Amino acid sequence: MKKIAGAIPPLDERAMAEARERQDSLTKPPGSLGRLEELSIQLAGIRGDPRPRVRDKVVLTMAGDHGVVAEGVTLYPQEVTAQMVRNFLNGGAAVNVLCRQVGARVVVADLGVAADLGGLAASGAGSRFVVKKIRAGTSNMTAGAAMSEAEALGSLEAGAKIVEEELSRGMDVVGVGEMGIGNTTAAAAIAALITGEAVAEVTGRGTGLDDRALGRKVALIERVLAANRPDPRDPVGVLAAVGGFEIGGMAGAMLAAAARRVPVVLDGFISGAAALIACAIDPRLRDYLIASHQSAEIGHSHVLRHLGLKPVFNLDLRLGEGTGAALGISLVEAAARILGEMATFAEAGVSGAEGK
Amino acid sequence: MKKIAGAIPPLDERAMAEARERQDSLTKPPGSLGRLEELSIQLAGIRGDPRPRVRDKVVLTMAGDHGVVAEGVTLYPQEVTAQMVRNFLNGGAAVNVLCRQVGARVVVADLGVAADLGGLAASGAGSRFVVKKIRAGTSNMTAGAAMSEAEALGSLEAGAKIVEEELSRGMDVVGVGEMGIGNTTAAAAIAALITGEAVAEVTGRGTGLDDRALGRKVALIERVLAANRPDPRDPVGVLAAVGGFEIGGMAGAMLAAAARRVPVVLDGFISGAAALIACAIDPRLRDYLIASHQSAEIGHSHVLRHLGLKPVFNLDLRLGEGTGAALGISLVEAAARILGEMATFAEAGVSGAEGK
Repeated sequence: MKKIAGAIPPLDERAMAEARERQDSLTKPPGSLGRLEELSIQLAGIRGDPRPRVRDKVVLTMAGDHGVVAEGVTLYPQEVTAQMVRNFLNGGAAVNVLCRQVGARVVVADLGVAADLGGLAASGAGSRFVVKKIRAGTSNMTAGAAMSEAEALGSLEAGAKIVEEELSRGMDVVGVGEMGIGNTTAAAAIAALITGEAVAEVTGRGTGLDDRALGRKVALIERVLAANRPDPRDPVGVLAAVGGFEIGGMAGAMLAAAARRVPVVLDGFISGAAALIACAIDPRLRDYLIASHQSAEIGHSHVLRHLGLKPVFNLDLRLGEGTGAALGISLVEAAARILGEMATFAEAGVSGAEGK
Repeated sequence: MKKIAGAIPPLDERAMAEARERQDSLTKPPGSLGRLEELSIQLAGIRGDPRPRVRDKVVLTMAGDHGVVAEGVTLYPQEVTAQMVRNFLNGGAAVNVLCRQVGARVVVADLGVAADLGGLAASGAGSRFVVKKIRAGTSNMTAGAAMSEAEALGSLEAGAKIVEEELSRGMDVVGVGEMGIGNTTAAAAIAALITGEAVAEVTGRGTGLDDRALGRKVALIERVLAANRPDPRDPVGVLAAVGGFEIGGMAGAMLAAAARRVPVVLDGFISGAAALIACAIDPRLRDYLIASHQSAEIGHSHVLRHLGLKPVFNLDLRLGEGTGAALGISLVEAAARILGEMATFAEAGVSGAEGK
């Protein structure tokens, strides 16, 4: 924790100034590429390089199970988490398809799946499987903390470790996604605690609850938080209280990536909840985050507002896995290529604005 | 005209139903990929194929000049249109970079540039140059029609011809963009006429006008429309009145693509104005259109509302060229791959929702 918390450097202002100057020399009206220009300048500041390149793109899909599913908060049975991990490793899930589309690698990590997946290996080209299991699913948060403080710290460290491994393989940008039946319940509890919004404002239908089931989910989270309200200023305590292992893994991965000057592309609501925890641990992370899409899950807009992030895609996605992050990574690469590959006015022999 | 106007087939309902059924069998909660699912179903209906493939992607960048620049409505001199055509052919412009990023070909067409570009050839890999010049720039719309009715029809036919040529090369999807100093003035006049909005509501800063210059641009368009208000129900008359050749070329390209069951990805405000003309010629085109981004140019939201289209990207782009269309094409391909490549619940051995 301590070693993670203070490790994120400020953005490199000189690289950003150089990138901004170059953007204004490229063959287009200044500012006309809008957020692609801003993104390229943020990227220069993150990488400490006025012309950063994005080559090795990775989506981390972290999986974990949630004891709270015993309360009937989901439409799908718990075994789907493990089944989907197999699907990821066979290349058949949405995140695999979108990562192939954008040329990213998929790294699937078991942080706490309630099944023994030790014998699995990735068969799909370009994907990898990592087992860093803290425990086979969290405890039911209605009966006490979802995990111990030591487990919470362990999940943060496991996520950081995975990032270190991928950095040694050459990773330039990381997208962070997840799989875990029941994890919109954990994420809603985290969002309510850290943003201060009412539970009903941040609790959504997950994979498709009807009105009645949604009402039960809201009441359950309110009951849990009334019984055991962790201090929102203690992010590890929040994580321990409501879980999950994959959320801690994502938070640790974000902090470790930023500490090594690697941009972090968020996915949807769950990865946003992980970012709330990670930014509470080290607020400097904020400058390294890039929001991909505005999720259809209702709590997501509150999470993004709290983080001060503006999503790029309006696609009504609500799947997770890293699907939105994969698409977002492709825009980070596009922004870097605009900065690096476009001709300047001088190079192309194009006249500038009159009187300038 | 007549042969273009009635040539667009309805979407293939059976292919759409099959695509919808397949989407619901894929390993994700039904609907959780939101607009990517809708896009895949629209694409199935357009192509008449329940599992359409998107291989050969093309961005058409149509160029033309505008006589109205004599009135001082732009920051950049007219020669920039021809200079940018050279930049496109050398691969140094934003549209080239983004097309490389998404794996699309760039086809640059001279519909009416005020310079002789006949000797140019594309040197960049994957781009092509087509000369279908109607005239070397439109007439100044403040002194009469920008072009004759015959020239308007000629520009529509030229755009259609370019699409036919690319179809014979295998084009599966087309993005439509443009280059033409002064063409936000023409597009604003078209948008005011066809949407019925006030000129000030649809007239923006183009490449960066200040408040005073913007006021002059609005007053100029109001004066032109007061002097010679074409019937909004006569789209060819509207095109002839305010231009330009590249806008007619885009409209003709859209109609021809739809007639051959090829999806059309719009760029920003100018291609939106071309779509207004094309949809007025044949309203069935609407089903074949895909909006890429919400432009920073203020008239664009009115244009999209009139067309009934919802953009996917919030990037504050205002460059044109086909830059937004290039990014949009990549999402069309992603949608097709989701439909074609994801595993079903049965194939992957994943449990469905309980009680279903």
